[in-house]
Amino acid sequence: MELIDRMLRGDVRALARLITLIESRHPALPEIMEQIYGHSGKAYVVGITGPPGAGKSTLVDRLTSEFRKNGERVGIVAIDPSSPFSGGALLGDRIRMAQHAADPGVFIRSLGTRGSQGGLSLATREVVRLIDAANYQVILVETVGVGQTELDIMELADTVVVVFVPESGDTIQTMKAGLTEIADIFVVNKFDRAGAANMLRELLQMVELSATREWTPPVLSAVAFRGDGISELAAKLAEHRAWLAARENGRDRQAHANLAEFADVLTGVIGQRLRSEAAKNSLADLLHRVKDGAVNPYCAALTVLHEPSMLKDLYTDEPGEMPDRPSRRKK
Amino acid sequence: MELIDRMLRGDVRALARLITLIESRHPALPEIMEQIYGHSGKAYVVGITGPPGAGKSTLVDRLTSEFRKNGERVGIVAIDPSSPFSGGALLGDRIRMAQHAADPGVFIRSLGTRGSQGGLSLATREVVRLIDAANYQVILVETVGVGQTELDIMELADTVVVVFVPESGDTIQTMKAGLTEIADIFVVNKFDRAGAANMLRELLQMVELSATREWTPPVLSAVAFRGDGISELAAKLAEHRAWLAARENGRDRQAHANLAEFADVLTGVIGQRLRSEAAKNSLADLLHRVKDGAVNPYCAALTVLHEPSMLKDLYTDEPGEMPDRPSRRKK
Repeated sequence: MELIDRMLRGDVRALARLITLIESRHPALPEIMEQIYGHSGKAYVVGITGPPGAGKSTLVDRLTSEFRKNGERVGIVAIDPSSPFSGGALLGDRIRMAQHAADPGVFIRSLGTRGSQGGLSLATREVVRLIDAANYQVILVETVGVGQTELDIMELADTVVVVFVPESGDTIQTMKAGLTEIADIFVVNKFDRAGAANMLRELLQMVELSATREWTPPVLSAVAFRGDGISELAAKLAEHRAWLAARENGRDRQAHANLAEFADVLTGVIGQRLRSEAAKNSLADLLHRVKDGAVNPYCAALTVLHEPSMLKDLYTDEPGEMPDRPSRRKK
Repeated sequence: MELIDRMLRGDVRALARLITLIESRHPALPEIMEQIYGHSGKAYVVGITGPPGAGKSTLVDRLTSEFRKNGERVGIVAIDPSSPFSGGALLGDRIRMAQHAADPGVFIRSLGTRGSQGGLSLATREVVRLIDAANYQVILVETVGVGQTELDIMELADTVVVVFVPESGDTIQTMKAGLTEIADIFVVNKFDRAGAANMLRELLQMVELSATREWTPPVLSAVAFRGDGISELAAKLAEHRAWLAARENGRDRQAHANLAEFADVLTGVIGQRLRSEAAKNSLADLLHRVKDGAVNPYCAALTVLHEPSMLKDLYTDEPGEMPDRPSRRKK
């Protein structure tokens, strides 16, 4: 498609348009992704997560400036799964926009979950691949919230930064468990607040207790809004990035990721089509009876599992909407 | 299967065993669910959600006693998606256990997300169906956290209760947006704390502003640990339950739910098998090449979408693990 060529040649508006196609789950999506796939896989992806109010947006903003000093182009993907019905731009997004809007080396996009039907982690991976293919060397993925979706999203990051603030209370305590397992780097932000030293000590103890990994997550402090601790964070990111590159078992991780991505894409498309009743002919009757309750959902699933050729009209019923088949398919 | 018969006859240990099969994603799961499906669909399912520390467990506990007074059997499913690596019993669970352990009319189970690969909402729905089939009239589903997964889970509830506490701060504010959209009933718990009246007023305003729905969500107050406000909550639940039963558009909602359940089951099984490389013959070569990176995941997905019969060995490769095929399949 022409849009893809333009995107690959650095056209930011083409990139934005393609991301919108991802958000709307356009039927041609698998073909688009197949075509850009070979151009992706080069970017360094940093996931930044932590409880709401931890100052992640500010941190991402400052970090962006740091990467820009080195001349690296930065893509930012901000995700807010806790507001599935808003779909609008995040506040932090607008603040950043003001600061980096004039810089062509920074691309910012926020993703809501409107219409993504539980496929937010897949959509995020696709958006990251697109920005990657558009030749941004560093991609920062920021998630708000700490549910399963956020953990799934963090799986696509090379380095995961978990941000806490010196705030006690049940909320943060409950959130900690899930987040600490996935952290490559900890940051205690808003370090000028009371309780900061305690929080730091606590995290250091936690890291020590679970120090069975090859990489021991450092615990950093920061006051992001005035820029304190940012260069230290950038340095640790560079260290982890180099460490990853030197590792041998990156291959296993990649094989696992390939398989997961394949499964996600395939089941994503099938699920989307089934829910939208897009199927014709072979499956239409079954879908109708499932809807009516004449056949129960499990019975219907078994029927298809035992006879998957029933799915044959699920994807190919809209030939007009599909671009030319990618040549690589003709093995 | 014998286990299913025992479960249907009220054997609690058989029920617990079947839930364990769900958690481990046993290959025979679709067959099991197909067999129990006809026995489910009678229970009144109440979802209880809200930020961590809102006192949901205590509320569920008190509510259970209330339903028991009316002689209804109560199933409780407690979910903690924010701790995907713990897998253990929740603290609240143990407290409740102590109180209701001697009561055969109460069944309690907590679900971690260990190994559920993003399929937590599907697993929860299956567990609820099982408890429903085991003849518990009321099922309380409690989730901790406020991500997309929790919202997905709440979709299966007939009535959604959102619990807040009078606690200000960024955290709660951020969480509010997503939660208020799904609430049928609000509860401000820990109402003896400072800021309670403010929180109540705020919620009432929010409800007023969005009062376009047929059911206007009431805003209740409670101090669950000493039992205040519980009978009022139980009364509102009864009111909403009756309102639902009298509604006409329940049919549309059911049709949508049937289709979604079918899509989830089918794609869940396919995704699980692809990730585990369980496929033999027709798909083994492709999976191998995806793993190696010889074929990119999107290209592989397109290949299968255009030729779904490739999936034929995905499910039927372990005949030994499958029970007899349900007779209804032979249409």
